Amino acid sequence: MKKTKKVRQEELKKTIEDSPFITDEELAKRFGVSIQTIRLDRMEMSIPELRERIKSVATQEWNETVKALPIEEVIGEVVDLELDERAISILDIKPEHVFSRNNIARGHHLFAQANSLAVAVINDELALTARSSIQFSRQVKLGERVVAKAAVKGEDERGQTIVQVQSFVENEEVFSGTFHMYRSNQ
Amino acid sequence: MKKTKKVRQEELKKTIEDSPFITDEELAKRFGVSIQTIRLDRMEMSIPELRERIKSVATQEWNETVKALPIEEVIGEVVDLELDERAISILDIKPEHVFSRNNIARGHHLFAQANSLAVAVINDELALTARSSIQFSRQVKLGERVVAKAAVKGEDERGQTIVQVQSFVENEEVFSGTFHMYRSNQ
Repeated sequence: MKKTKKVRQEELKKTIEDSPFITDEELAKRFGVSIQTIRLDRMEMSIPELRERIKSVATQEWNETVKALPIEEVIGEVVDLELDERAISILDIKPEHVFSRNNIARGHHLFAQANSLAVAVINDELALTARSSIQFSRQVKLGERVVAKAAVKGEDERGQTIVQVQSFVENEEVFSGTFHMYRSNQ
Repeated sequence: MKKTKKVRQEELKKTIEDSPFITDEELAKRFGVSIQTIRLDRMEMSIPELRERIKSVATQEWNETVKALPIEEVIGEVVDLELDERAISILDIKPEHVFSRNNIARGHHLFAQANSLAVAVINDELALTARSSIQFSRQVKLGERVVAKAAVKGEDERGQTIVQVQSFVENEEVFSGTFHMYRSNQ
């Protein structure tokens, strides 16, 4: 039996609260309705679109400035930043990011997004990657949107800052990495 | 006392045999002579220039073809390749590869060179990186030439191919990485 609009909207609200990075496409699939229906539901309930939601996931407004590099040198769009705490960026996978043969995103672009976010989150004029362990959990395809979340996890035994980065497509982890960052004031 | 030309040329020949990736600049520094002198010495002894030497380091001629991706999608210039065995590529660090602030090469370009070489060495139409551990041993600056060497080291417990990549600037290691590669015929 088809859900009533009221039930669907309540469930939709709950789903978005639980998974703020979910797309309208994914919601439409999950609820078996059109994307247009999801958009109308969101508008009626005043739930902002994904990009706005990602921005507002931040507990504080993004009022900090990237220190370690000019913002335009970050790969992906930074949508949240709290220095030495956490950062979020978005990268839309375009034709220049994929293998021509199979439209799978090339690993070094996911690495570049994560690594430059790990640099950006450091509260220092100089931040360089010393070492890193990474994992590609599933293939990312042309057209997908990758949300990377960096979290500063303290220092390792050498005084380098440990930054954990997880990247998601529609709440599914596609990449994770641990970056040990050298900084000038360590 | 200054070495005689004969002594210098003998030592030069020995040095190049031991360290085929050494540049003329580095040789000039080491022998306390001008770069021009090194070039003349090399010409007299018929020792080819660095790029040619790198190509001839291969025990076999490069008669194999990259299978996993079109050759132009490899980051850096492939100068040696034996599928499922080893590969070498060269990447000259240009302004687009460095942080604007300090002219230090960005980690993801060194990663991209190494990772795409790890893909290129695989004898399979499909090769994807599953996970990787990497280390940046020293900063690489604008204008430096990075020589990456990949060696296939067998299989891990999941049947993924392990590729070890080491990257050098003038015989000094600047990057190393272990890549676990998924392949379709594993």
